[in-house]
Amino acid sequence: MGTRVETRPIDQALASELQAIVGDDHLCTNSDDLDRYSRCTIPWQSRCAAVVFPGSAEEVAAVVKIAARHRMPVWPSSKGRNWGYGTTLAIDDGALVMILERMNRVLEVNEELAYAVIEPGVTYEQFNAHLRSKGYPLWIDCTDGSGQGSVIGNALERGIGETPYGDHFGNLCGLQVVLADGELVHIGGAVQGLKTWHTHKWGVGPYLEGLFTQSNLGIVTRAGIWLMPRPECYNSFVYEIRDERHLPKVLDAFRRLALTGVVNTKLHMINDFVSMTILTQRVSEQVPQDGPLRDADLAALRKKYGVSPWNCAGGIYGTRGQVRLQRSLLRAALAPYGRLIFISDRLLPFLEGLIERAWKSDFFRRLVEIGARTSLPVLESAPYVHKILQGIPTEYFVKHAYYRYRRPRPAQDVQPARDRCGLIWFAPILPFTNDHVWPFLEACKQRFAAHGFDFYVAMLLMNPRSVVCLMAVIYDREDADETAHSQQLYDELLALMRERQFQQYRAGLQSWGELFKDAPEMQHLNARIKAALDPDNVLAPGHYGVDR
Amino acid sequence: MGTRVETRPIDQALASELQAIVGDDHLCTNSDDLDRYSRCTIPWQSRCAAVVFPGSAEEVAAVVKIAARHRMPVWPSSKGRNWGYGTTLAIDDGALVMILERMNRVLEVNEELAYAVIEPGVTYEQFNAHLRSKGYPLWIDCTDGSGQGSVIGNALERGIGETPYGDHFGNLCGLQVVLADGELVHIGGAVQGLKTWHTHKWGVGPYLEGLFTQSNLGIVTRAGIWLMPRPECYNSFVYEIRDERHLPKVLDAFRRLALTGVVNTKLHMINDFVSMTILTQRVSEQVPQDGPLRDADLAALRKKYGVSPWNCAGGIYGTRGQVRLQRSLLRAALAPYGRLIFISDRLLPFLEGLIERAWKSDFFRRLVEIGARTSLPVLESAPYVHKILQGIPTEYFVKHAYYRYRRPRPAQDVQPARDRCGLIWFAPILPFTNDHVWPFLEACKQRFAAHGFDFYVAMLLMNPRSVVCLMAVIYDREDADETAHSQQLYDELLALMRERQFQQYRAGLQSWGELFKDAPEMQHLNARIKAALDPDNVLAPGHYGVDR
Repeated sequence: MGTRVETRPIDQALASELQAIVGDDHLCTNSDDLDRYSRCTIPWQSRCAAVVFPGSAEEVAAVVKIAARHRMPVWPSSKGRNWGYGTTLAIDDGALVMILERMNRVLEVNEELAYAVIEPGVTYEQFNAHLRSKGYPLWIDCTDGSGQGSVIGNALERGIGETPYGDHFGNLCGLQVVLADGELVHIGGAVQGLKTWHTHKWGVGPYLEGLFTQSNLGIVTRAGIWLMPRPECYNSFVYEIRDERHLPKVLDAFRRLALTGVVNTKLHMINDFVSMTILTQRVSEQVPQDGPLRDADLAALRKKYGVSPWNCAGGIYGTRGQVRLQRSLLRAALAPYGRLIFISDRLLPFLEGLIERAWKSDFFRRLVEIGARTSLPVLESAPYVHKILQGIPTEYFVKHAYYRYRRPRPAQDVQPARDRCGLIWFAPILPFTNDHVWPFLEACKQRFAAHGFDFYVAMLLMNPRSVVCLMAVIYDREDADETAHSQQLYDELLALMRERQFQQYRAGLQSWGELFKDAPEMQHLNARIKAALDPDNVLAPGHYGVDR
Repeated sequence: MGTRVETRPIDQALASELQAIVGDDHLCTNSDDLDRYSRCTIPWQSRCAAVVFPGSAEEVAAVVKIAARHRMPVWPSSKGRNWGYGTTLAIDDGALVMILERMNRVLEVNEELAYAVIEPGVTYEQFNAHLRSKGYPLWIDCTDGSGQGSVIGNALERGIGETPYGDHFGNLCGLQVVLADGELVHIGGAVQGLKTWHTHKWGVGPYLEGLFTQSNLGIVTRAGIWLMPRPECYNSFVYEIRDERHLPKVLDAFRRLALTGVVNTKLHMINDFVSMTILTQRVSEQVPQDGPLRDADLAALRKKYGVSPWNCAGGIYGTRGQVRLQRSLLRAALAPYGRLIFISDRLLPFLEGLIERAWKSDFFRRLVEIGARTSLPVLESAPYVHKILQGIPTEYFVKHAYYRYRRPRPAQDVQPARDRCGLIWFAPILPFTNDHVWPFLEACKQRFAAHGFDFYVAMLLMNPRSVVCLMAVIYDREDADETAHSQQLYDELLALMRERQFQQYRAGLQSWGELFKDAPEMQHLNARIKAALDPDNVLAPGHYGVDR
C-alpha cells in the first residue's frame, strides 16, 4: 500500500518541458490540487507528483515521450470518476497523473449508420445533451453512475450500462491510440482514413482493440461508438420479488428470456439493502449506528419504504407491436413470482405529476402510496430508472456511496471521492445459473456480516450466460477500525471468489497485484506484450496486473 | 510467388523427431500427399515439405518446439477447407504444414448456458450431428461452405455464417492456445479452470482473444462456442427483387430492419450470376464458352431458371408470436419492392414432396413452376436455404466453384481444390449505405468484364452498419491466359478497394503482402507483438501480413 508521506514535487526541468507542451495552466503541481487527485473512496493512499491535462493526441504523445525520458510513470484517466475501483490513483506515490478531460469533442455523428466518434473527455451528460439538442434520433447508453463520467473511460474499463448497447466495450468500434513511445496508431483503421473504421469492429489482421482495455498498453485518444436508433416505442419495467423463495425460478426465467433475446438489456437485480442506500442514510434512521442492520431493522425499513427483498429493472424497445408482445412474454414468464410494472413514455408525465403532488400533500401521498403499494421515495425512483434506460444519466443512484456518511448527502454535485465517502466495489462475474449464484452470494453475505457490514449486491446481466454480482462495501472512512475491516472483507471476498473459480469482470486497484495469481501464463503473456510495447514501463505500470 | 520446383524432403533427423511425437502414421512426407496439401483454388503455387497431424495440444506444443529448433516454419490449419483464400498453402515453399483434424472432440456441451467446448478438428457436419443425435435443444451456426470445414478454423478467420450467431469470432468464448515457444495459455481463463471461461468473453485484464484471429501468434487447440437455443418457432425467408431500380430502397429498408433488430441474421443478398453458378455450369448452357455471359445470355438464363436479378435470404426465430410479428414487419418494409416468401418447418416437407414429384413428372413440374413463378431448380434450393439457417450444413452451395469447370461437377464430396477448380474470393467490407455500396459494385463489375469474367457478388451483412461484398473470380485453371487474368483482376480489385478507402473483412494469401500498406503503424504494431511472442518467426510468417 502506498504511504502517506508527502512526495517531493516534480523536477523543475520536467515541469518546464511539460508546460511547454500543454501550457502553464494545464499542469498542476500545487499541493491542494495533488491532494484532490489523490483521493478515492477505497482504502488506499498514494499521492501523485503532478497532474497534466493534454489538449490533443499530439500533446498526449509529447507528454508520454517526455515522461519516458525522465523515467516518470504516467497514469492516464479520462475523467477520473471511477469511484470504488481507484479513480485517478496510481499504485505508488510520485506518478504523473494524466487527465484527458480537455479532449472533450464529439467529432462526428453519423445518423444513417448510428455511430459517433468522440474524445475521452466526453461525458455521458454532455454526449446525451449533444445528441438531443441537435435532434439526432440516436440514444447513448449510460451507467447508473455519475453523468460526469467519461464514455470512453468506462468502455475501456469494460463497464456495463443499461440498454441493448450496455456492453460498452462491445460497442466501441475503431480506436485512435497513443503508444508508450508516442506513436499514434489507428486500431482497425488506416492513416489516411478507412470508411469502415467505425462500422466494422474486427478490422483486418489480428484484432487488437482489446489490448487497450483494462490495461496499460496505450492511451486511447479517440473512439467510435455505436448508438441505439431511437425506437418507435420504449417501456421500462420494474419487477418486485416479495418472496425470496421464488428467486431460483426468477433467475431461470431471466436466463431463458435473455438467451432468447426477449430481455436484451443489462438487466439489474438489486437486493433490499441496495434500495436502502439510495433511499436513505444510516444517520437518518433509527438503526444501529455502528454496525450492520439487524434482520429486524432491515425488515422494518423494507416496511417503512415499501421495498421488496429484491427488485429488478430493465427496458424493452421496438415498434409498438414488438413492445406489446415483449410485455406479454415478460408477463407470462415473470408475473407468477412477483409484481411486474411497465412504464411507458405516456405514463411517465402522469407519474411525475403524481409524485410532485404527493410530496406537497400528506393526504394525497397516503392515497398514492396505498394505490401504488409502495412508498413515495420508491415511487420517485421510477422516473430515474425510466430515463437511465433511454440514456439519460442521473446522479440519483450515486447517492448510495453516502449511506454510512455521517453528514447529510448532497442533493447535487454528488462526488463521493471529494466528500471522502468509503466505498469499495467488488465485481465478480459468475455463470448465470442458480447453482453458481446463490451459494456464492450466501457465502459473501456471511463475510459481510462477520466484518460488520451490510450486504449490498446488485446483479447485472453481462450477457445471457454471465452475471456480474456487484457488491459494495460501504464504510465510514472516519472510523479507522471500520476502514481496516473493509479492506479485510475485500480480501476475503477475493479469496472466496478464487476458491470458487470465479473472476472479476472489473477490478479495483487493491486487487491488481494478485489478478493473475491463478493464471501465471496469462500474466507472462501480458508481460511479454507490455515489454514489447512499453519497454520502459512508462504507462501505468501494474495497472490491471500488467507489468513488464 | 512460390515456385513450382520440387522442394527437397525434410531432414531425416527432423522427421524422426516429429514421428517420435505424433507417431509414424501422422507425418506425411511422400510426394503425392504433399501435392494434395499444396493445392488451392487460387493462382498461387507453393509446396510444403511435410504435413504433420498432431493429436493433442501437448503434441502441438512439442512439434512447434522441434520446428523452432530446426528453423522450420509451421503453417497450422484446422481442416484446410479455406478454398478461395489459400487453404493449407504457405506463402513459400518448404513449410511444415500442421493439420489439426485429429483433434476433433466435442469436449463439453452445456445445455443450460447454451455453449460447447470443441477442438479445432470438429467440423460443422460433425458438430451439428453431435448435438442433434444427443437431443440437445441447441443449434450451431454453419456457413454455406463445406460441411467439412472446421468450426474453430472459420471463427479464427473471422468468417461469418447465417443465423443470429453468425459472427463466428464474436461467439467464440475462451481459447486454449499454444504459443510459438510451446507454452499453453488459457486466454480468458486460468490454469486450474475458471467457471466463466466460456461464458464471459472479455475475461479480466487486457482482452487477448483477438490476437489469435487472422494472425499467426499462436495455435488455438480448444475453444468455447456459444450456441443458439432451439427457438419455439423458426421461419426462413427468400426475397426476390425483380426490378433493380428498387435496390437502394431495399438496402435502406434492410439497414433499418437490422439496426432495429428485426433482421438479426447474417442476411445474404446475391446477384443473378451467383444463382447461376449454383444452378448450372457454363459447359451445360448455350452460352459463350470463352468469356463472360453477355447481358442477353444472362437475361435468357434468368428467364430459363426463373431467377430474379437479386435474391435475398434470412431467418427469423422466436416464439410463434414473435415470428408472426417479424413476418409482418418484414412484409411491411419489403413487400413493396419484391416478392417475399416465408418457409416454415411445417411448409418444408410439403415443399420437399412437391419438388420430388415434380422431378418425376414433366406435367406436374410445369404446374409447380407456374404456381411458384420460378423454376424447379430454384425451388429445389429453398430447403437447403431453410436448413442452413438452422445450422444444418450442405455441400449444395459449394458447387458454384465448378461453374467454369470443363467437366460435370460432382454431386457429392464436393472438393474444389482437389478438382483443381479456379476460384478466388475477394471480400471487401463497406459501410452499409447506398452511397458506398452501389458505386463500388458498379466499378468492380466493369473490372470483371474488362478481364472477361462474370460478375459474382454476394452481400453478407456483417452487422447492421457493415456489409461484406463478397466477390468470386471463377476461372478455368486449365486456361493459362484466364488464370493470369484472374490474378490481374484480383490485383485491380484490391487497388480499387484501397482507393475507395475500404478494407477486406477476410483476406486471401495473395493480398497478405500489402495488407497494411495504408496502415504502416498497424503493421509495425503487429510486428512488435509478433517479435515478442514468436521471436524466431516460427508460426506462419507473413500470414495475414504479420511478420516480425
